[in-house]
Amino acid sequence: MLKELDLSLKIEKEIFKGIYPDLSGHLAELQRHCREKGIAQLILFEGMSASGKGTLINRLIQPLDPRGFKVFTIKPPNEEEALRPYLWRYWIKIPSAGRMAVLDRSWYQRLWVEKVEQKLSPHLIHQTVLEINSFEKQLRDAGIVLIKFWLQIDKKEQRKRFKILESHPQTRWRITSQDWQRNKDYNRYLKAAEEMLQDTDTGYAPWHIIEAVDERWATVKIIQKTVSVWENVLESQKSPVEKSNPAPKTKTVIPKTEKKKEETGSSLLSRADLSLKLEKKEYQDTLSRYQKELREVEYDLYRKRIPMVIVFEGWDAAGKGGNIRRLTYELDPRGYEVVPVAAPTEQEKARPYLWRFWIRMPKAGHITIFDRSWYGRVMVERVEGFCSEEEWNRAYREIREMEQQLISFGTIVLKFWLHISKEEQLKRFKAREDNPLKQWKITREDWRNREKWPLYRDAVEEMLLRTSTTYAPWTVVEAEDKYYARVKVLKTVIDSTRNIL
Amino acid sequence: MLKELDLSLKIEKEIFKGIYPDLSGHLAELQRHCREKGIAQLILFEGMSASGKGTLINRLIQPLDPRGFKVFTIKPPNEEEALRPYLWRYWIKIPSAGRMAVLDRSWYQRLWVEKVEQKLSPHLIHQTVLEINSFEKQLRDAGIVLIKFWLQIDKKEQRKRFKILESHPQTRWRITSQDWQRNKDYNRYLKAAEEMLQDTDTGYAPWHIIEAVDERWATVKIIQKTVSVWENVLESQKSPVEKSNPAPKTKTVIPKTEKKKEETGSSLLSRADLSLKLEKKEYQDTLSRYQKELREVEYDLYRKRIPMVIVFEGWDAAGKGGNIRRLTYELDPRGYEVVPVAAPTEQEKARPYLWRFWIRMPKAGHITIFDRSWYGRVMVERVEGFCSEEEWNRAYREIREMEQQLISFGTIVLKFWLHISKEEQLKRFKAREDNPLKQWKITREDWRNREKWPLYRDAVEEMLLRTSTTYAPWTVVEAEDKYYARVKVLKTVIDSTRNIL
Repeated sequence: MLKELDLSLKIEKEIFKGIYPDLSGHLAELQRHCREKGIAQLILFEGMSASGKGTLINRLIQPLDPRGFKVFTIKPPNEEEALRPYLWRYWIKIPSAGRMAVLDRSWYQRLWVEKVEQKLSPHLIHQTVLEINSFEKQLRDAGIVLIKFWLQIDKKEQRKRFKILESHPQTRWRITSQDWQRNKDYNRYLKAAEEMLQDTDTGYAPWHIIEAVDERWATVKIIQKTVSVWENVLESQKSPVEKSNPAPKTKTVIPKTEKKKEETGSSLLSRADLSLKLEKKEYQDTLSRYQKELREVEYDLYRKRIPMVIVFEGWDAAGKGGNIRRLTYELDPRGYEVVPVAAPTEQEKARPYLWRFWIRMPKAGHITIFDRSWYGRVMVERVEGFCSEEEWNRAYREIREMEQQLISFGTIVLKFWLHISKEEQLKRFKAREDNPLKQWKITREDWRNREKWPLYRDAVEEMLLRTSTTYAPWTVVEAEDKYYARVKVLKTVIDSTRNIL
Repeated sequence: MLKELDLSLKIEKEIFKGIYPDLSGHLAELQRHCREKGIAQLILFEGMSASGKGTLINRLIQPLDPRGFKVFTIKPPNEEEALRPYLWRYWIKIPSAGRMAVLDRSWYQRLWVEKVEQKLSPHLIHQTVLEINSFEKQLRDAGIVLIKFWLQIDKKEQRKRFKILESHPQTRWRITSQDWQRNKDYNRYLKAAEEMLQDTDTGYAPWHIIEAVDERWATVKIIQKTVSVWENVLESQKSPVEKSNPAPKTKTVIPKTEKKKEETGSSLLSRADLSLKLEKKEYQDTLSRYQKELREVEYDLYRKRIPMVIVFEGWDAAGKGGNIRRLTYELDPRGYEVVPVAAPTEQEKARPYLWRFWIRMPKAGHITIFDRSWYGRVMVERVEGFCSEEEWNRAYREIREMEQQLISFGTIVLKFWLHISKEEQLKRFKAREDNPLKQWKITREDWRNREKWPLYRDAVEEMLLRTSTTYAPWTVVEAEDKYYARVKVLKTVIDSTRNIL
């Protein structure tokens, strides 16, 4: 989840000046509404050392009515707190109806900082995960709106910030030898944080991950997210009458054009280098070599009874079919199966969402390739409204849990997102229309989906972030050049087995 | 949960003959409604060997339309199944909309039988608990109605049944040396089952525990429970219009009078021997000896920094106040606190239910005595409708989780239910009214509560069962004789520290 972030995202000063006043005005207005409606709010900030928690909390609360909130800075437990169960000190801070609490660090400290520094036992970590999930569920069930922000900076940026703080006499005291040690051990903290986010990113209390290298970017993203959560809560509290006769909407401050989105949206995809390509000769040589190698891998998997799941997702016309054909070209057909996934049948709709995928999972020693997959829930079903918001929100966790179960059974799980540019898609659509042999591949629905590109991109970005786990990460495949994509997929599959076979 | 069961419960043949036909007719009718509404149903049976799963499943399904359901007998996994993740074989059995599946054994086998016999690692057990809870939550979210029955017989009954089976030529083959070994190790299986029930008794998929020594009793309780779950589901699926204009109710078959309840309700409380008493002289001697001993215990707890939580619940006029006074008589007031619990204030209502108890938990080395407690949620609030059914149903688990957190912090948790008969209560009420010094203690509300005795008794029984855990069991105190009760409480508190101090 964290490694996939694009930390180069930023907002120029002039643009920031243009949007910040309206954004913060909007935030303050929503806070008033929440107070009037008696909605209790809890916002917590976790993040790497020097990721700017203090500054960003300030940016968030400056516009707010100071009578409405209280900021708590969480330090190591004092004597009173150390004498009580772990969550006690947080229970006593729960805001009452209409009030708001902001936490600078939180109950998550044990799951990453303390876990790393005090070498806590897996048993204690596990127990803490259970306690936290139970606690957050009770908050939600009691109507308290919890927002969890994770602020992310990389090792280099952290070092830079430490140096700056050290170089000023007023801030020198803030940097200790422990901080430098943390920077040195950055990757251990990162790993612990990744695991923590996976274990506690739930439908009732999701994490919001903020790229925090650029302060303006982080400020806008944090406020936007808070606005959006509060708007949804206020909306859901309206009576049916209010809903059908909507009051004049609070003015929308952030222009939601596509251009705007390019500026402030996350852009995991935009980092894919679509200029990557292979020459035909090199492609042909490598391809056939890898194909033969994969056949060996298939037999090894069979002998060692290791199952493998390969998921293909990607834009329309990104080349899923072609990729799968090249992948399976040399394989023994008794060892693998390709499962094309379309809209669910009536039989499938009559069961839990993941049912139709569960029943098709490979047995030990076999390979199942999904041409589209369970990720439809958080893409097409989300965008087209085929399921409720609650359903797709819940699905991230359900999916992670399913993949985790596959992995703990010993399955290798690979997930490919085939990425092409919007322009390349257009070119391929037109080529299909012009080619009598390929016309069947292009339908009016493809054109309709294309119009919703920005909505799909948002959904894809969120999917890649929230379902890239330490045990089943996504591979984004630069697929503008078909040769490059096919070779990358083959190589990734072969490499994934290297440590196992 | 299991040790507290009264396995002597039974129904006479004549009474059974009187109610079974109507009950099963009602069941069949509800099944038809469920099919029409497209509600998928899953009923699973777990229980001790020879607890009668086969027979009872038969009793349940005999009245049903055989086209509507399918019974699965779960054996050790076959080759196909062993080659896939643990839950795969259950996923493929999920019934589609309107269909019903009955499972004889289930995904719970790993959590108790296999755990005991294959010495599974705590890690695997823990992972399986997570997988099962996640699975059952997905079933619920998909609208599938899951009912889980646990059939309980004791060691002696099990031995008896094995002998009977062995003595008949037709059934001799069913009893193997493994069965006898299981009988010998009965307590290990019981402990594993207790832990399993605690870990997987959730708001979305609660366990129903059946006293299965008497087949007629078990049959009626299983059908009644199924009827009640299905009725609730059908009711909740009605449109608001249907709800406000109720169609003529399906005829209520089971007369819900108090007398009836005495016959078929659970009776954990009725087993308390209320004739237990102490003579004054013995009482006075023992009391003062224990009180002094408890003071030593208090100091020991303080020195060793062990916190203690004591909960007093019981019928009105059962003697909570008097008990607490005797308990604390010799204690050092700096070491303990008595927290009287009344209806929540506005401030408390504005927060999650358990908040007001959390904030009052003792610090290490201290004792907190709750005069009434968080159990109000599943008693008075349930009976008087001060919270929704969903809320009190969820509370059993929330409470268990809270107590588990206290215990994993090292707290000693003791819970006393002071039990008196309805007649004794009447006597005490009247005595209070006649005594000018005690008149304040009796209000009109006490009389009103008394009228709802049967409703309260149901709630208390369910509370005792579902929140008696291996780590924090209830102690039912026979309080008809005040002397006896006070001494028993003191002794229990002192004994609880014996293994720790």
